[in-house]
Amino acid sequence: MSSLLIIGGSDAGTSAALRAREVDANAQITVVLADRFPNYSVCGLPFYESGEVPDWHWLAHRTAEEISGEGISLLLDHKAQSINAKRHEVTVVDTGGQARQLGYDRLVLATGALPVRPHIPGIDLPGVFLLRSMQDSFAVHEYLDTHIPRSAVIVGGGYIGMEMADAFVQRGLAVTVVEHGVSVLKTVDESLGRLVSAELQHHGVEVITDVAIERLVQADKQLYVMGSQEFSTAADLVLVAVGVQPQTGVAQSAGIALGEHHAIRVSRAMETNVPDIFAAGDCVETWHRLLQAPTYLPLGTTAHKQGRIAGENAVGGHREFAGALGTQVVKVFDLVVGRTGLRDGEARDAGFDPLTVESTVWDHKVYYPGAHEIRIRITGDGKTGRLLGAQMVGHYHGEIAKRIDIFATALFHGMRVDDLNDFDLSYTPPVSSPWDPVQMSAQAWVKQCQ
Amino acid sequence: MSSLLIIGGSDAGTSAALRAREVDANAQITVVLADRFPNYSVCGLPFYESGEVPDWHWLAHRTAEEISGEGISLLLDHKAQSINAKRHEVTVVDTGGQARQLGYDRLVLATGALPVRPHIPGIDLPGVFLLRSMQDSFAVHEYLDTHIPRSAVIVGGGYIGMEMADAFVQRGLAVTVVEHGVSVLKTVDESLGRLVSAELQHHGVEVITDVAIERLVQADKQLYVMGSQEFSTAADLVLVAVGVQPQTGVAQSAGIALGEHHAIRVSRAMETNVPDIFAAGDCVETWHRLLQAPTYLPLGTTAHKQGRIAGENAVGGHREFAGALGTQVVKVFDLVVGRTGLRDGEARDAGFDPLTVESTVWDHKVYYPGAHEIRIRITGDGKTGRLLGAQMVGHYHGEIAKRIDIFATALFHGMRVDDLNDFDLSYTPPVSSPWDPVQMSAQAWVKQCQ
Repeated sequence: MSSLLIIGGSDAGTSAALRAREVDANAQITVVLADRFPNYSVCGLPFYESGEVPDWHWLAHRTAEEISGEGISLLLDHKAQSINAKRHEVTVVDTGGQARQLGYDRLVLATGALPVRPHIPGIDLPGVFLLRSMQDSFAVHEYLDTHIPRSAVIVGGGYIGMEMADAFVQRGLAVTVVEHGVSVLKTVDESLGRLVSAELQHHGVEVITDVAIERLVQADKQLYVMGSQEFSTAADLVLVAVGVQPQTGVAQSAGIALGEHHAIRVSRAMETNVPDIFAAGDCVETWHRLLQAPTYLPLGTTAHKQGRIAGENAVGGHREFAGALGTQVVKVFDLVVGRTGLRDGEARDAGFDPLTVESTVWDHKVYYPGAHEIRIRITGDGKTGRLLGAQMVGHYHGEIAKRIDIFATALFHGMRVDDLNDFDLSYTPPVSSPWDPVQMSAQAWVKQCQ
Repeated sequence: MSSLLIIGGSDAGTSAALRAREVDANAQITVVLADRFPNYSVCGLPFYESGEVPDWHWLAHRTAEEISGEGISLLLDHKAQSINAKRHEVTVVDTGGQARQLGYDRLVLATGALPVRPHIPGIDLPGVFLLRSMQDSFAVHEYLDTHIPRSAVIVGGGYIGMEMADAFVQRGLAVTVVEHGVSVLKTVDESLGRLVSAELQHHGVEVITDVAIERLVQADKQLYVMGSQEFSTAADLVLVAVGVQPQTGVAQSAGIALGEHHAIRVSRAMETNVPDIFAAGDCVETWHRLLQAPTYLPLGTTAHKQGRIAGENAVGGHREFAGALGTQVVKVFDLVVGRTGLRDGEARDAGFDPLTVESTVWDHKVYYPGAHEIRIRITGDGKTGRLLGAQMVGHYHGEIAKRIDIFATALFHGMRVDDLNDFDLSYTPPVSSPWDPVQMSAQAWVKQCQ
């Protein structure tokens, strides 16, 4: 009977454990967690803050009991401190500081990522929050309940920033988003980012771009946020959401090599450079299917896939990660914004000859009630006609996410933009057009490419 | 300058004309229509009857002016009567019975389909309708407005039957659907058909199955519908919607060979067996990508694709139809029902070794408001693991249509069911789960297959 030890019980760790159990009914599987919240949905935290999820327990993808029910041991509230790879041992420490050694035949590191904590004065003031862990989310929630803030400044116009702007508005706060770049949601092109800004403004959010936050100050129980271009504003609460970085301290203690973006270097079988140690999720670099190179893409979908592969391989399997495309989607009020593959600049950097064409199409036949426009940007290679990426903004009920996925499946197969017209896609007037918007935008790209 | 004549101005005919114009700016293009409604959305007729589309003009995919604006001549209200292939001439007749000859270098037949008119007594009674053409739809609409019927019997539980049940309920009628088979919507398996029946019943529609209609009788301005199993009911209006058949009379006059389901036989380049005559849309047989054989699949999506290819090739192009998968979707009240590929029996008939597994999954994370269950049935080959088909029923806002399309893209590429787990699909809690429902159902299939 082999023993599998997994450090981290979020998406990647839990997926690894469950898949190992499926593949090997006899393996002894233990998951060590730094906190007491196995398999919680980090992506769900904004909806707990907004009140849409009234009880944080609902955020568990699975309960501890469900995981234990699969014959998986959970060691809660234990932090992994170091790995002795030669002795196949991990030192863990409980909340009281008591250390223990845990042996393993195979080890999976799923230590995740930490939010970036920018080095600006005032970042540690009360009322200033980051949001990544359940503990973070309790802190924000409690502050909302007890301090009844009336205004919030969100530093960072990324996914968390957008979702938290939505959440704070739902909680009745006056919200300002401050973004360093030229538009919010830098994961899509500026013309689409502007649509998101307009949606935020339509819901009363003030959007400030091109401003870098320089310091936070407290005076008379009021926070002040100051930045470049003489920006200054007061707020009762400040949320800093400027990205994440891989958590690799324990891995480095075992001499595990880091790769892209200082994340753990892994093979496509999710093996590290140290024998019997696998890694998966937000702590590792991710193989990009289009770039054919590692990149850093900390996403829940990828963490689940990589965890599943690490778990399977750790008990003797031979599966390889097929590669990520950077497919992502976020809901901001009534809009959904999605993307997959490469944008123009990314494609050019990778040696392609990109052409990006923007189209505006209806999400279903305009004669049927409830039609909204979708803005689609397709990036393809001008020389070969190959599809390289797509971005889309549309209404929440416009099937934006799964339309991005149609592009993602085409990218997966290395199709040409024009080939999308050969797909036999579904149509009825309340959901689409005889040529799906995906295909109409492909036709617009082809026409412009000629 | 070559002349292109197109018989039929619905989806296939108009697509052919527009594509020919795109490819050849100089071709002389004429579209002959039996009525005066070019490029109307046949699929939209139920929504005109329901009142959701208040003005029938809205149903035009494009107006006559828009088509003419592309330099395409429209000859309205002219029926094609016969083709003299040797002389490259078509005889057309206007509404006054006046005949004319039109010459052509290349001809595209896009004569569409006619509704099946069952041979039952009473089918021609006033108050009994079929629904296919704009003229049909005006007749129903006028009857609704002038006779104010309070009850309707719909004969046939297919797509039109389902949509018209929805439409008549919206118009305040008491509706009964009478279906010959064991469940409505025979394009999906019985367990999913039952969900549709329940949805109909939930909205007050009476659903009768296993009954074949035998005769219609009128007495005292009341219609009576009588069928097998001693079925009898009264109605103010009867709609008969029991399928369509290809309209091929003109084609046969030219010695054009018929194929599957008595539809016009065509190559994948949309050529008939007679030189310089192409055909496309509901009047032709359709190449099935999985069966690698012709079948009859009269669908708007396919008509557009085939028309586009016929138009391109008729002016010198060399494009081939990539094949249909039978991807279809229909909205019935708050449900959307989709399918693509083969069902169990169809797959077995085609020589596969099918296994069909049904799963129930949430359309997005259940903790986020508005989640509904999706029922997914995957059919795969038990020996090779290859995906053969998928069927799905879920909520209107559950992105059912585009999830079916993800299966369709996988079928297009001949993927294995397990390969779906390699797709990098989009996720945020309001629209999906870290493993999309498509992937969760694939995992359930794989587990059962082992």
